[in-house]
Amino acid sequence: MQTRQWLLADHPRGRPLRDGDFTLVTRDLPEPGAGEMLLKVLWLGFDPAQKGWAENVADYVAPMALGDVMRGSGIARVEVSNGGRFPVGTLVAGLTGWTEWLVSDGAGFEVCHPGLPPTAMLSVLGTTGLTAWCGLFKLGEPRPGDTVLVSGAAGATGSVVGQLAKVAGARAVGIAGGAEKCRWLVEEAGYDAAIDYKADNLRARLKELAPGGVDVVFDNVGGKILNDMLAHIATGARVVICGGISRYETGTMPAGPENYFNLVFRRATMRGFIVLDWASEFPALRKRLAGLVNDGRLKFRIDEQTGFENTPRTLMRLFTGDNRGKQVLKIAD
Amino acid sequence: MQTRQWLLADHPRGRPLRDGDFTLVTRDLPEPGAGEMLLKVLWLGFDPAQKGWAENVADYVAPMALGDVMRGSGIARVEVSNGGRFPVGTLVAGLTGWTEWLVSDGAGFEVCHPGLPPTAMLSVLGTTGLTAWCGLFKLGEPRPGDTVLVSGAAGATGSVVGQLAKVAGARAVGIAGGAEKCRWLVEEAGYDAAIDYKADNLRARLKELAPGGVDVVFDNVGGKILNDMLAHIATGARVVICGGISRYETGTMPAGPENYFNLVFRRATMRGFIVLDWASEFPALRKRLAGLVNDGRLKFRIDEQTGFENTPRTLMRLFTGDNRGKQVLKIAD
Repeated sequence: MQTRQWLLADHPRGRPLRDGDFTLVTRDLPEPGAGEMLLKVLWLGFDPAQKGWAENVADYVAPMALGDVMRGSGIARVEVSNGGRFPVGTLVAGLTGWTEWLVSDGAGFEVCHPGLPPTAMLSVLGTTGLTAWCGLFKLGEPRPGDTVLVSGAAGATGSVVGQLAKVAGARAVGIAGGAEKCRWLVEEAGYDAAIDYKADNLRARLKELAPGGVDVVFDNVGGKILNDMLAHIATGARVVICGGISRYETGTMPAGPENYFNLVFRRATMRGFIVLDWASEFPALRKRLAGLVNDGRLKFRIDEQTGFENTPRTLMRLFTGDNRGKQVLKIAD
Repeated sequence: MQTRQWLLADHPRGRPLRDGDFTLVTRDLPEPGAGEMLLKVLWLGFDPAQKGWAENVADYVAPMALGDVMRGSGIARVEVSNGGRFPVGTLVAGLTGWTEWLVSDGAGFEVCHPGLPPTAMLSVLGTTGLTAWCGLFKLGEPRPGDTVLVSGAAGATGSVVGQLAKVAGARAVGIAGGAEKCRWLVEEAGYDAAIDYKADNLRARLKELAPGGVDVVFDNVGGKILNDMLAHIATGARVVICGGISRYETGTMPAGPENYFNLVFRRATMRGFIVLDWASEFPALRKRLAGLVNDGRLKFRIDEQTGFENTPRTLMRLFTGDNRGKQVLKIAD
C-alpha cells in the first residue's frame, strides 16, 4: 500500500513560505504490526506555529530535519486494527503529519469528542481552543468589567479568546484587518467592538474604546500592533504573548516593542506560554469548552479547503490573512 | 531669609541633559508658620528617574512644570521648629527638592535611621535599596541556586541587587561598563562574576557563565543589553524591568527588545514596577536592610560630590557612567 506525503524541503527562516519548501512524494506504507492500526487522514489542521517548526527556530519541540514528513495535526479514522488502541471506525485526533495514510500504535492520539463535528478537535477543542483558554485564564486572568484587547481577533484562537472573555464577564475588543472580519467579530463572534487596523488609527480608536486603558492584552501578532497595544495598557495590566504572526512575514526580525517600558509605568506583566505545558489538564478543559459550545456561548468558524495537493498553499493562507476561522483541509471522506 | 534653588528651565525630552535645563535662582523664604519647621538641606540624592520627571514622561508622579523647583530627595536638619513634627536638630529624609533651605510641615519626611550614616537614607535605606529589595524579591523571586543577572550592576541599585541575591542563596552575575567597575563588583560587592559589556562579547560570556540560562534578569539599562539578556533566559525566567538608563542617552527612543518573543519559548515573565506602590512596607523593609548592613552582609558605596552650584552636573554623572555607587551631593554641614 502507498500514501502521498508532503516532506519538508527547505527551512523558511526569516522569509515567507514558498512552494519549494515542501515536496510531494509517494511512499510505501508497511502493514500494521501487532498493536498497530492503519489510519486514514480525513482532515488536516493548520497553525501559525507550523512555520516555526519548519524553520527549526522554536526549540520547545523536537527539531524538524529536511526530508521529514511535515509535522501537523489531523483527524483520522481507524481503517484497520491489528489489536490497536481504538476499534475500526473510530475517529481520532493527533499529530498525523502531512500524509494521507499512516500506521500508528495510537500513542498521542485521542478519540474525537462525541456530539460535535470532528473538526472541532482541530479548532475549539484542539490546540486552538486550549491555547485561548490557557492563555486567557491562566495568564490574562480577566475579571468582570475588565477590558480584554485581542489582536488577530478574527483568527481561530483570537475569536475564541473574545468569547471566553465575555463568558467571564469582561468586555472584548478585537483588532483585525478589514471591514468584513471586523463585522464578523461584532455580529457573530460577540466582540463588543472591533478595530480595523488597516483602516483605523489604532491608537486613537483604543483611546475611544478603552479610555481607562486595557486590562488584558492577548497578542497573536507582535510588531507594530503589539507596540501600539502596549501604549494603552491600564495599571496592573496582563499582556499575554501568544503568537507573533507578524514575525513570519518579514525578511528580517521585526523591531521589538519600544513601549515595553510602559510595563514599568503601568506596573504591568508580560508573559509567554507554551500550551503543551498544561497537557495534563486538556481532557478536563475540553469538556468545559464543549459545554460552552453546546450551550451556544461559544461559536467557532471553520475555513475548510479541499484536496491534499493544496496542503502547503493552505498553510500559507494563515500568513496572508485569507483564512476565515480555523483553517482545515479536507483530504478524504 | 533667602535660599538658592535650582528651577526646571526646559524639558530634556529625547536628548541628554544639558546645563540650560536648570536655572539657579535666589528666593525669599517665608517664616515657618504654626506646625512648620525650617529645614537646612545637607545632602541631595540623585536618581535616573529624575530625568523622567523633568521630561514629564513618567506619569506615575505629578507632572513638573517649567519654573518648578527641581524635584529630588535629600537629607535635611531641623533648624527651627514652630511646633512642627520633629525637634530641632533632627535629621530627616524626604523630597526636599533642589534647594538649600525649605519650610515644611514635615509631611512625607522621615527621621534618618539611627546607627548608620545619614546618607544611607539616600541609598541602601532609601529608594535605591527599597527598589532593589522589592524588584528582586517581589518580582524576581530568586530561589537558592538560581542565577540572577543584573545590568547596570555597579550602579547604586544594581550593587544592592547582587548582594541581596547572594543573601537569598542565588548566584549573582553583573554587567557593567569598564574593568574597574567589574573588579569592584567581584572583589567588593560580592558578585560571583562580572561581564564588561564594553570589552566582552556579552552573549558569549553569558553562555559561559550561565550555560543553563539565567533565572532572574534585573534590568536597569534597556536597549541592546536587555535584548541580549532576553536571548539567554532559562525556562520560567522572571525578567524585572527596573530602569532603562539607555533610554535617556539617545535622541530617539531606543529599539524595543526584538527577543521579547523568547518569553514564549521560555514560558517567561517580564514585569515592571513602581516601588512607591509598596510605601506602606518601607519602614519594615528598612529595618531588614539596616540589619543586613550591620551584619556586614550588605555593603554600599557613596559617590559624594560637593557644592550646591554643581547640582545639575551631579545629576548628569548618572548618565555618563561617572558615578561610583550612589550619587549624592553634600551642600552644607
